[in-house]
Amino acid sequence: MFRRIGLVAKHDDASVHGALDAALAVLARHAVDVVVDAGAAATLDGRHRIGHDDELVADRDLVITVGGDGTLLRAAKLVFPRAVPLLGINLGRLGFLADLSPQRVAQGLEAILAGRYVEEARSVLACELVRDGRVVAAQTALNDVVIQRWSTPRLITLNTYVDGRFVHTQRADGLIVSTPTGSTAYALSGGGPILDPAVPAILLVPICPHSLTNRPLVIPDSARVEIDVGPEDAEHSSVNADGFALPGWRPGDRVRITKHQAAVHLLHPAGHDHFATLRAKMQWGLPPC
Amino acid sequence: MFRRIGLVAKHDDASVHGALDAALAVLARHAVDVVVDAGAAATLDGRHRIGHDDELVADRDLVITVGGDGTLLRAAKLVFPRAVPLLGINLGRLGFLADLSPQRVAQGLEAILAGRYVEEARSVLACELVRDGRVVAAQTALNDVVIQRWSTPRLITLNTYVDGRFVHTQRADGLIVSTPTGSTAYALSGGGPILDPAVPAILLVPICPHSLTNRPLVIPDSARVEIDVGPEDAEHSSVNADGFALPGWRPGDRVRITKHQAAVHLLHPAGHDHFATLRAKMQWGLPPC
Amino acid sequence: MFRRIGLVAKHDDASVHGALDAALAVLARHAVDVVVDAGAAATLDGRHRIGHDDELVADRDLVITVGGDGTLLRAAKLVFPRAVPLLGINLGRLGFLADLSPQRVAQGLEAILAGRYVEEARSVLACELVRDGRVVAAQTALNDVVIQRWSTPRLITLNTYVDGRFVHTQRADGLIVSTPTGSTAYALSGGGPILDPAVPAILLVPICPHSLTNRPLVIPDSARVEIDVGPEDAEHSSVNADGFALPGWRPGDRVRITKHQAAVHLLHPAGHDHFATLRAKMQWGLPPC
Amino acid sequence: MFRRIGLVAKHDDASVHGALDAALAVLARHAVDVVVDAGAAATLDGRHRIGHDDELVADRDLVITVGGDGTLLRAAKLVFPRAVPLLGINLGRLGFLADLSPQRVAQGLEAILAGRYVEEARSVLACELVRDGRVVAAQTALNDVVIQRWSTPRLITLNTYVDGRFVHTQRADGLIVSTPTGSTAYALSGGGPILDPAVPAILLVPICPHSLTNRPLVIPDSARVEIDVGPEDAEHSSVNADGFALPGWRPGDRVRITKHQAAVHLLHPAGHDHFATLRAKMQWGLPPC
Repeated sequence: MFRRIGLVAKHDDASVHGALDAALAVLARHAVDVVVDAGAAATLDGRHRIGHDDELVADRDLVITVGGDGTLLRAAKLVFPRAVPLLGINLGRLGFLADLSPQRVAQGLEAILAGRYVEEARSVLACELVRDGRVVAAQTALNDVVIQRWSTPRLITLNTYVDGRFVHTQRADGLIVSTPTGSTAYALSGGGPILDPAVPAILLVPICPHSLTNRPLVIPDSARVEIDVGPEDAEHSSVNADGFALPGWRPGDRVRITKHQAAVHLLHPAGHDHFATLRAKMQWGLPPC
Repeated sequence: MFRRIGLVAKHDDASVHGALDAALAVLARHAVDVVVDAGAAATLDGRHRIGHDDELVADRDLVITVGGDGTLLRAAKLVFPRAVPLLGINLGRLGFLADLSPQRVAQGLEAILAGRYVEEARSVLACELVRDGRVVAAQTALNDVVIQRWSTPRLITLNTYVDGRFVHTQRADGLIVSTPTGSTAYALSGGGPILDPAVPAILLVPICPHSLTNRPLVIPDSARVEIDVGPEDAEHSSVNADGFALPGWRPGDRVRITKHQAAVHLLHPAGHDHFATLRAKMQWGLPPC
Repeated sequence: MFRRIGLVAKHDDASVHGALDAALAVLARHAVDVVVDAGAAATLDGRHRIGHDDELVADRDLVITVGGDGTLLRAAKLVFPRAVPLLGINLGRLGFLADLSPQRVAQGLEAILAGRYVEEARSVLACELVRDGRVVAAQTALNDVVIQRWSTPRLITLNTYVDGRFVHTQRADGLIVSTPTGSTAYALSGGGPILDPAVPAILLVPICPHSLTNRPLVIPDSARVEIDVGPEDAEHSSVNADGFALPGWRPGDRVRITKHQAAVHLLHPAGHDHFATLRAKMQWGLPPC
Repeated sequence: MFRRIGLVAKHDDASVHGALDAALAVLARHAVDVVVDAGAAATLDGRHRIGHDDELVADRDLVITVGGDGTLLRAAKLVFPRAVPLLGINLGRLGFLADLSPQRVAQGLEAILAGRYVEEARSVLACELVRDGRVVAAQTALNDVVIQRWSTPRLITLNTYVDGRFVHTQRADGLIVSTPTGSTAYALSGGGPILDPAVPAILLVPICPHSLTNRPLVIPDSARVEIDVGPEDAEHSSVNADGFALPGWRPGDRVRITKHQAAVHLLHPAGHDHFATLRAKMQWGLPPC
């Protein structure tokens, strides 16, 4: 049973009001303790306890987000690596992660509070910048780690290693290292396949590779991926984990990416169908014939 | 230890002679029993026992192929579902499966007979044509099952289901359902990603889909994939498993594809590196810099 | 001024009735002579003169089609190579060619009869099968000529020549040779670019090429494209022009494709915007921001 | 006849020495006046007149480059918009532009000096940054103009107009606007087709577009292409013409791209075959069969 609930809402967006109200109306009918973040509180009337980022998730046993996939990504970063489940309510535009529509908040939330839900573990990448054998920066990513040229129009040279074995050298705009969750985000724009969240794999998608034979590569998620760039490219390269930059890359540095031992836990109302979300998002419009 | 060895060679190709001789010279130095298939025998001097397809593999504990990946696929079909390992010697052109070069036969084969090898299990697809609830035809595939339009210039409509859930309807030339092994074969031509053989997944690649949002899809290999076609398309559709046709499709039929419980077992000399094969085959030519 | 008008409708489709009626109502208000084809007549009340294919277009100065792009392609084949303009009315689903919606038939047709229209010449391919220096079969194509494997699961080998110069040999499922008009048809499914109809070019798109470096190729439409296949592939290859098969291919035959000297002439109501059609068909949904 | 020749060599690369010597040996046998740039002079013995950029091309009637395609691009920028022809000698690695190999310098250069050559005009893009109706910056590009996100991991919104008509809005990493010459450069990495240099077209290739239905687009080279970005994206966008940055983009600015009235003139020894270059560069390795 969920007794302590955190509510995280999209910032600076008046349209969250309706969905927030609907969610709070349901929660008010149950004996639950609710803390809202400043973003959510701004659209409310002051009756709810406001929590800072850490209070918001410290002792919660469910975090509900109201917004798009970006809002859920932000909340996941607050919660992680604790196994607090997340439920994403969208603002009318279906998300891959925030898949409960505002119209169905009442019934969906009641179902979840009554225990009629499915919980899904989504893998997370741990990304470390390694210098002289020491980790000098680290981040986690639910979607992807992107190594790319930065503030230069020139391609960079990327060397990739998997479990210590050399894979290839490519000249490209960059490389996307993605979870199955991220396969429908930036990796898809780069030409990658769609990975079902249940496939225990890591996806590597080159960005505008100079060689036409570089293709997306799917490897086991037990793998240790390491990437370095040409010595002259280090100052013109960046590493981003879910859009957050790791500090500057120096010649000789290496990015190390592994699957994190903890996962992000998503809740869906019972009967959730990931393929239905895919069909709607990808506009695979036709019914079976 | 390998004591009973079968030898399968490419048909009608004089260039197998050298590699065959090299292999037999090694085998002659060991107390092993060798049976050769008619293809191999045709290029030999008659000193070796010739076996028909079933004798060739019935009690063997190693089957060696001399030829390209096609020859190894053929031998795998003979051996399967027995767990007899396969070793592929190529004819100078590196294969994804037949990766021992003729120049290295002596040293590679000695290493393998001495137990210095790695064994790799490659997943296999079981493909069944289901009519009125009964299986009317079945095949297995180490590479792929291809459902495609046949003898018509018109697209067909394919409905795909995974574990009983509807995935999508697409109008296309066809659909490739591939193992990781097959991801470097026809699926690659269709725009699919490369799957490491260790990823427990099945790959679905649409062939020339009418909708631009249909993308390759990677699902767990525990999945049951089912495909049917539009009623008017059945007579203009075919199912091929590793290039072997299943008998004619009738309206209402459904193709069911699952991972077979048995695998194909490949042997490689110790130190084998799948990425080295990929680099050479894909012409990922550059050394790390 | 258009005084003799032919009407061609989609066969066996009751939904053409409304659009046909709307078109005939406009035409009845003008002193025009109308002949309808059997397909159109089947849905009418018998007041209109029915013409066979050749009567339908012999002395017409405008042909109106009611149906999808397929119906317009069929009428274009009847009209060609005469420069009779074509106007395509669709059945509610926007076509690339049949771009006048049934809702706008009255106003669009009035505008066109009043001379407020734009006429657009679309290039056409002439396709010939050449045997021992003689043309043994010929077809024309507004969309594309497709050379492809036929009734075989194996790739074919295609040799391509432009203006007598060797371009490349590729192993593939086939090759699409397309006009700009055809670039939004099958060639798009094969991964080709979109060509504006005003670009004087021919587009070559390989179908599932074995080599990853084969890419769509755009050449001047003054070029003479010639294609032959490997000797053993001739019996397993077919040539289709807009979906119509040329008779069987024999070893040594060559397909020769050039731009036809005549064009297909499309009419659009004044103000027509090809990019608007593209946006709608390709679901490029966003307004400028 | 070529009487005044400029020589431009790759900077800081000792391997130019051999090709330079070979070229100068041929030129010494003819009554020609040679000026070398500082890059070339650095590897020579001082017997040749050194010219600065403007002297080098001011009154030359042929400019020879020694290096890769980058060196020829640099020389083209010096020469342009004068119609001085360019001949590119490479350093052993075939270029799309610098296609005379060092081994064939003597015979190729003799042929050209004897008038046995083909001259090919390559179209050039004129790129202007327009602010409040005035042009505030301008560049030319033989390959491409690239509008892209800059120093941000977030996609930008690009609005494209052709001849004043709205084409589409896309969210992407950027957009490549390319000449046929540039179609084998960055545009190819972005997934674009190969355009024959003789096709009078401009190629638009989206970079990692968020929407899967955005495809490369080929339009007539008489078109005026205009691109602006979302107001909040201007400070995070850049415009590069052949790798040279135009100064900073302000909200409301628009990039205008047209075909320049002048062209770059390339010389090739008689018998030059562009398809042979493509086959070699793209590794379309097979002979016709």
